[in-house]
Amino acid sequence: MARVVVDVMLKPEILDPQGKAVLGALPRLGFDGVTEVRQGKRFELEIDGDVTDARLAEVREIAQTLLSNPVIEDFEVHIP
Amino acid sequence: MARVVVDVMLKPEILDPQGKAVLGALPRLGFDGVTEVRQGKRFELEIDGDVTDARLAEVREIAQTLLSNPVIEDFEVHIP
Repeated sequence: MARVVVDVMLKPEILDPQGKAVLGALPRLGFDGVTEVRQGKRFELEIDGDVTDARLAEVREIAQTLLSNPVIEDFEVHIP
Repeated sequence: MARVVVDVMLKPEILDPQGKAVLGALPRLGFDGVTEVRQGKRFELEIDGDVTDARLAEVREIAQTLLSNPVIEDFEVHIP
Protein backbone atom coordinates (compact mmCIF):
# COMPACT_ATOMS: atom_id res chain seq x y z
CA MET A 1 0.00 0.00 0.00
CA ALA A 2 1.33 3.40 -0.96
CA ARG A 3 0.14 6.98 -0.88
CA VAL A 4 -0.07 9.33 -3.85
CA VAL A 5 -0.99 13.00 -3.55
CA VAL A 6 -2.80 15.08 -6.17
CA ASP A 7 -2.68 18.86 -5.74
CA VAL A 8 -5.27 20.81 -7.74
CA MET A 9 -4.91 24.59 -8.04
CA LEU A 10 -6.76 27.15 -10.13
CA LYS A 11 -4.69 28.29 -13.12
CA PRO A 12 -2.82 31.53 -12.34
CA GLU A 13 -5.02 33.57 -14.71
CA ILE A 14 -8.25 32.40 -13.02
CA LEU A 15 -9.64 34.64 -10.27
CA ASP A 16 -9.64 32.92 -6.86
CA PRO A 17 -12.28 34.54 -4.61
CA GLN A 18 -11.60 32.14 -1.70
CA GLY A 19 -7.91 33.02 -1.70
CA LYS A 20 -8.75 36.73 -1.95
CA ALA A 21 -11.09 36.42 1.04
CA VAL A 22 -8.33 34.85 3.13
CA LEU A 23 -5.87 37.53 1.97
CA GLY A 24 -8.35 40.25 2.95
CA ALA A 25 -8.88 38.78 6.41
CA LEU A 26 -5.18 38.59 7.32
CA PRO A 27 -4.52 42.29 8.11
CA ARG A 28 -7.72 42.45 10.16
CA LEU A 29 -6.37 39.58 12.26
CA GLY A 30 -3.03 41.32 12.72
CA PHE A 31 -0.99 39.41 10.15
CA ASP A 32 1.00 41.31 7.56
CA GLY A 33 3.67 40.32 5.08
CA VAL A 34 1.47 37.96 3.05
CA THR A 35 1.00 39.39 -0.44
CA GLU A 36 -1.05 36.68 -2.15
CA VAL A 37 -3.12 33.63 -1.21
CA ARG A 38 -4.40 30.95 -3.59
CA GLN A 39 -6.67 28.17 -2.36
CA GLY A 40 -6.83 24.78 -3.99
CA LYS A 41 -7.54 21.13 -3.25
CA ARG A 42 -5.38 18.29 -2.06
CA PHE A 43 -6.31 14.64 -2.56
CA GLU A 44 -4.53 11.81 -0.75
CA LEU A 45 -5.03 8.48 -2.52
CA GLU A 46 -4.14 5.10 -1.03
CA ILE A 47 -2.97 2.76 -3.77
CA ASP A 48 -3.15 -1.01 -3.69
CA GLY A 49 0.40 -2.32 -4.14
CA ASP A 50 3.44 -0.35 -5.27
CA VAL A 51 3.47 2.96 -7.11
CA THR A 52 4.46 1.78 -10.58
CA ASP A 53 4.63 3.95 -13.70
CA ALA A 54 1.33 2.40 -14.82
CA ARG A 55 -0.32 3.29 -11.50
CA LEU A 56 0.98 6.86 -11.70
CA ALA A 57 -0.37 7.17 -15.24
CA GLU A 58 -3.74 5.97 -13.93
CA VAL A 59 -3.67 8.51 -11.10
CA ARG A 60 -2.90 11.26 -13.64
CA GLU A 61 -5.93 10.18 -15.65
CA ILE A 62 -8.07 10.20 -12.47
CA ALA A 63 -6.76 13.69 -11.69
CA GLN A 64 -7.56 14.93 -15.17
CA THR A 65 -11.04 13.42 -15.49
CA LEU A 66 -12.44 13.38 -11.97
CA LEU A 67 -10.41 15.52 -9.55
CA SER A 68 -9.79 18.62 -11.63
CA ASN A 69 -11.46 20.77 -14.25
CA PRO A 70 -8.71 21.09 -16.89
CA VAL A 71 -10.29 24.28 -18.29
CA ILE A 72 -9.60 26.28 -15.13
CA GLU A 73 -7.33 24.09 -12.97
CA ASP A 74 -3.82 22.64 -13.06
CA PHE A 75 -2.88 19.55 -11.11
CA GLU A 76 0.30 17.92 -9.85
CA VAL A 77 0.75 14.27 -8.89
CA HIS A 78 3.47 13.45 -6.41
CA ILE A 79 4.54 10.87 -3.87
CA PRO A 80 4.75 12.39 -0.38
CA MET B 1 9.28 37.05 -2.32
CA ALA B 2 8.84 33.42 -1.37
CA ARG B 3 6.11 30.84 -1.42
CA VAL B 4 4.86 28.85 1.56
CA VAL B 5 2.32 26.04 1.29
CA VAL B 6 -0.22 25.06 3.95
CA ASP B 7 -1.91 21.67 3.53
CA VAL B 8 -5.07 21.17 5.57
CA MET B 9 -6.53 17.66 5.88
CA LEU B 10 -9.33 16.28 8.02
CA LYS B 11 -8.01 14.29 10.98
CA PRO B 12 -7.91 10.56 10.20
CA GLU B 13 -10.77 9.79 12.59
CA ILE B 14 -13.10 12.36 10.96
CA LEU B 15 -15.40 11.06 8.23
CA ASP B 16 -14.65 12.58 4.81
CA PRO B 17 -17.77 12.41 2.60
CA GLN B 18 -16.08 14.20 -0.32
CA GLY B 19 -13.25 11.68 -0.37
CA LYS B 20 -15.73 8.83 -0.08
CA ALA B 21 -17.70 10.21 -3.05
CA VAL B 22 -14.55 10.28 -5.19
CA LEU B 23 -13.63 6.77 -4.06
CA GLY B 24 -17.12 5.54 -4.98
CA ALA B 25 -16.94 7.10 -8.44
CA LEU B 26 -13.61 5.52 -9.42
CA PRO B 27 -14.80 1.96 -10.19
CA ARG B 28 -17.73 3.34 -12.19
CA LEU B 29 -15.20 5.24 -14.33
CA GLY B 30 -13.08 2.14 -14.85
CA PHE B 31 -10.35 2.84 -12.31
CA ASP B 32 -9.45 0.22 -9.75
CA GLY B 33 -6.59 -0.19 -7.31
CA VAL B 34 -7.38 2.91 -5.25
CA THR B 35 -8.42 1.86 -1.74
CA GLU B 36 -8.93 5.20 -0.01
CA VAL B 37 -9.32 8.88 -0.93
CA ARG B 38 -9.15 11.84 1.45
CA GLN B 39 -9.86 15.36 0.25
CA GLY B 40 -8.37 18.43 1.86
CA LYS B 41 -7.30 21.98 1.12
CA ARG B 42 -4.06 23.47 -0.11
CA PHE B 43 -3.16 27.12 0.39
CA GLU B 44 -0.28 28.78 -1.45
CA LEU B 45 0.88 31.95 0.30
CA GLU B 46 3.24 34.51 -1.21
CA ILE B 47 5.40 36.01 1.50
CA ASP B 48 7.03 39.43 1.40
CA GLY B 49 10.79 38.90 1.79
CA ASP B 50 12.54 35.74 2.89
CA VAL B 51 11.04 32.78 4.75
CA THR B 52 12.51 33.35 8.19
CA ASP B 53 11.70 31.36 11.32
CA ALA B 54 9.53 34.27 12.48
CA ARG B 55 7.59 34.27 9.19
CA LEU B 56 7.08 30.51 9.38
CA ALA B 57 5.78 30.87 12.94
CA GLU B 58 3.37 33.52 11.68
CA VAL B 59 2.18 31.25 8.86
CA ARG B 60 1.61 28.46 11.40
CA GLU B 61 -0.51 30.84 13.45
CA ILE B 62 -2.46 31.83 10.31
CA ALA B 63 -2.96 28.14 9.51
CA GLN B 64 -4.21 27.42 13.02
CA THR B 65 -6.55 30.38 13.38
CA LEU B 66 -7.82 31.09 9.88
CA LEU B 67 -7.06 28.27 7.44
CA SER B 68 -7.97 25.23 9.52
CA ASN B 69 -10.41 24.12 12.16
CA PRO B 70 -8.12 22.52 14.77
CA VAL B 71 -10.99 20.46 16.19
CA ILE B 72 -11.37 18.39 13.04
CA GLU B 73 -8.36 19.24 10.85
CA ASP B 74 -4.59 18.86 10.88
CA PHE B 75 -2.31 21.15 8.91
CA GLU B 76 1.23 21.08 7.60
CA VAL B 77 3.34 24.08 6.62
CA HIS B 78 6.09 23.53 4.09
CA ILE B 79 8.22 25.31 1.52
CA PRO B 80 7.61 23.88 -1.96
